[in-house]
Amino acid sequence: MLKNDLLLRALRGEKTERVPVWMMRQAGRYLPDYMKLKAKYDFFTRVQTPELAAAITLQPIDQVGVDAAIIFSDILVIPQAMGLEVLMEEGKGPSLPKVIQSQKDIDALNTADAAHHLKYVLDALSLTKKELNGRVPLIGFAGAPWTILCYMVEGKGSKTWDKAKQFAYTQPLLAHQLLQKITDITIDYLKAQVAAGADTVQVFDSWAGSLSPADFKIYAQPYLLQISDALKHHAPVILFPKGTWYALKDLAASSASGLGIDWCVAPKVARELTNNSITLQGNFDPAKLLAPIPEIRKAVKEMISEFGTHRYIANLGHGITPNVPVDHAKAFVDAVKEFGVAN
Amino acid sequence: MLKNDLLLRALRGEKTERVPVWMMRQAGRYLPDYMKLKAKYDFFTRVQTPELAAAITLQPIDQVGVDAAIIFSDILVIPQAMGLEVLMEEGKGPSLPKVIQSQKDIDALNTADAAHHLKYVLDALSLTKKELNGRVPLIGFAGAPWTILCYMVEGKGSKTWDKAKQFAYTQPLLAHQLLQKITDITIDYLKAQVAAGADTVQVFDSWAGSLSPADFKIYAQPYLLQISDALKHHAPVILFPKGTWYALKDLAASSASGLGIDWCVAPKVARELTNNSITLQGNFDPAKLLAPIPEIRKAVKEMISEFGTHRYIANLGHGITPNVPVDHAKAFVDAVKEFGVAN
Repeated sequence: MLKNDLLLRALRGEKTERVPVWMMRQAGRYLPDYMKLKAKYDFFTRVQTPELAAAITLQPIDQVGVDAAIIFSDILVIPQAMGLEVLMEEGKGPSLPKVIQSQKDIDALNTADAAHHLKYVLDALSLTKKELNGRVPLIGFAGAPWTILCYMVEGKGSKTWDKAKQFAYTQPLLAHQLLQKITDITIDYLKAQVAAGADTVQVFDSWAGSLSPADFKIYAQPYLLQISDALKHHAPVILFPKGTWYALKDLAASSASGLGIDWCVAPKVARELTNNSITLQGNFDPAKLLAPIPEIRKAVKEMISEFGTHRYIANLGHGITPNVPVDHAKAFVDAVKEFGVAN
Repeated sequence: MLKNDLLLRALRGEKTERVPVWMMRQAGRYLPDYMKLKAKYDFFTRVQTPELAAAITLQPIDQVGVDAAIIFSDILVIPQAMGLEVLMEEGKGPSLPKVIQSQKDIDALNTADAAHHLKYVLDALSLTKKELNGRVPLIGFAGAPWTILCYMVEGKGSKTWDKAKQFAYTQPLLAHQLLQKITDITIDYLKAQVAAGADTVQVFDSWAGSLSPADFKIYAQPYLLQISDALKHHAPVILFPKGTWYALKDLAASSASGLGIDWCVAPKVARELTNNSITLQGNFDPAKLLAPIPEIRKAVKEMISEFGTHRYIANLGHGITPNVPVDHAKAFVDAVKEFGVAN
C-alpha cells in the first residue's frame, strides 16, 4: 500500500487534498550525490546496474521531497534493445554510430524479448519499489516512437532533425515500418515495467515539436495512441509530446490519463485546449528555477492558481538543468506543497 | 518604380493577382554560387563588403525566381555596432568572447550612430537596390531585442538560453535596460535601412519561443511593438517571433503589416488566431524541401489553399537549410506561382 498516492489519484481524476509534485530529470546532475556517483561510474554503468539506478532514483525523494520517483534510465535503451549501439560521450550527448537508412536496416532490428534485453531496468524498478517501501509511487518511462526514430535515423541530437524528417518525407512506408517496430517493443517494455513495479508510465515525445501539426498526426500521434491504448489496463499513462500545443485537444480525448504540458503553453490555455477533461502535468519554466527563491514561490503560486488544484500534477515544463541550486529545486517543491492545498 | 510589387501590396492588405513568395535564408548555402564566394571570403568579409553582399543578395532572384530580395547580412551586426566582438567560426555558429553581465557592461554599450557603424549594410542596400533595377522589392532586417539579448548574455547559441533567461529573471531591471538599448539602436538602424533603399523590414525574434507566454509579454513583445510603431510610417514591418503562436492574437492587433508564421502552426489556426486581420507569411516546413518534388508541390498547394491567396506571402516556416537541392527550392517557388493565382 502506498502511503502517498497523490500522483495516482490525480491521474485517476480523483480529488486530492493537495497537488502532487515531481520534476522531470529530478534524479540528475543538479544533485551533488548524483555527481558523486557520476564521477565513479559512466552513464550506461549507472543505467545498467540496478543498485546504482535505484540509489539515484531515490535521491530526490529523500533530498527534495517530491511525491513520486521516476526510474533513472534513458530513452535510448530501446534502440539498444533493438540492436543498435548507443554511445554517451560526456558533454556531447548521445550518438549512434550505425543509423537506420534502408529496408535492410529495419529488417535487422530486434523487436522481441524487451523484458530480456532490458532486464536491468526491470530489476532496477523492482529494487527501487522495494526500497521505496510505499513512500511514493514509482514512474516508469519510455521515449515515444517519433523521438526514438529521430535518434535512430539522425544518429545524434539535432536542432532541426532534418535527416529524420527527410527519411519520413521521402520514405514514408519505411518510416511507418520503423515507427511500428519501435511501438511494438515499447509496448512490451512498458508492460514489463508495470509488472516490475511501475505504478504509472510516462511517454516522452521530446522532439514531437519538430513536426508540423499535419505531420504530427501522421508520424507521431498514431503511435502515441497505440501505446496509450495498449497500456491503459495496466497502468495510467502520461503522454508528454513537447512543443505540440496543437495536439492537446486530440490527446485529451485519448486513453491517456495525463498530459505533460511544456512552459510555452499558458495553463489556462492548456485547460481550454483540453476542455478540462484530463489531468495535466507541468509546466514551470525550468530556467525560472534559476531565479531568486521569492520569485520561484510567486511563479509557483500563479501556476497553481491558473491550473487549479484538481486534475493537476505540478512539474516543470521540461527537465531540470544541472545548474539549478538544490535549495531552489526544494523551494519549488515546497511551494507546491504550500500553495497546492485544495480548497 | 517596381515591376513586381506583389510583396508590398500583400503587406498593405491589397488584393494581388497571385501570392508573392520568398524564402528565409534564400541567399545562402544551398546555392552553389554562394558556396563559391564562401570559399573565397570569410563570413564578415561577405557581410561587410557591399559588392559581395549585393551579389549574394541577388543570386536567388536570378536563380530561384523569388518575388523579393532580402539583404545578405546578419542579426549580430547590432551587438558589433554596440561595441561587442562577434566571432563566426565555420560549423560552430557565432560566439561573443565578452558577454553582458552587469550594469557596467550595459553602460559601456554604444547606442549611437547606427548608420555610421553599419554603413556597410546601408551601402549594400543602396547597391542592391540599384542592381535590382526595380525587379522586386528589397527587404531589410534586424534581430529582435530579446533574441539579440540572448546572444549578448549567453555568448553563443543555446538550446535552452538558460543564461539569458537567468539574467532576465534575476536582474529584470538590467534586462530591460539592455533590451531598451538594443531597441533604440535597432530602430535607428532599420530607419537607416529604409532610407538606404529597403522597401520593407523584417524583425527576426528567433528565440522568442524560449519564453513562456507570460515572459514573452514582459521581455519580448513590448520591444517588438516599439520597433513596429517607430517604423510604421517609414516602411511596412514584418514581425517573425518564432515559436510564439500564443502571441499571434496580440501581434495581429499591432502596427505591424505582416506576421511570420512557423511551420508548427496550422495555417487555418494562424488565420483564426489573427482574426484574418493581418497579412501572414510562411510557413512551409523547411525539411519538407528535402521531399521529392511532387510531394513539395502537393504540400505547397495545400498550404496555399489553407492560408488563402489574400493577405498572404508564401515563405518557409524557418530558414532554408544548406542540404536542399536548388531544384527543390525552385520547385517550391514555382509551385507558389502556379497554385497561388488568386481566384
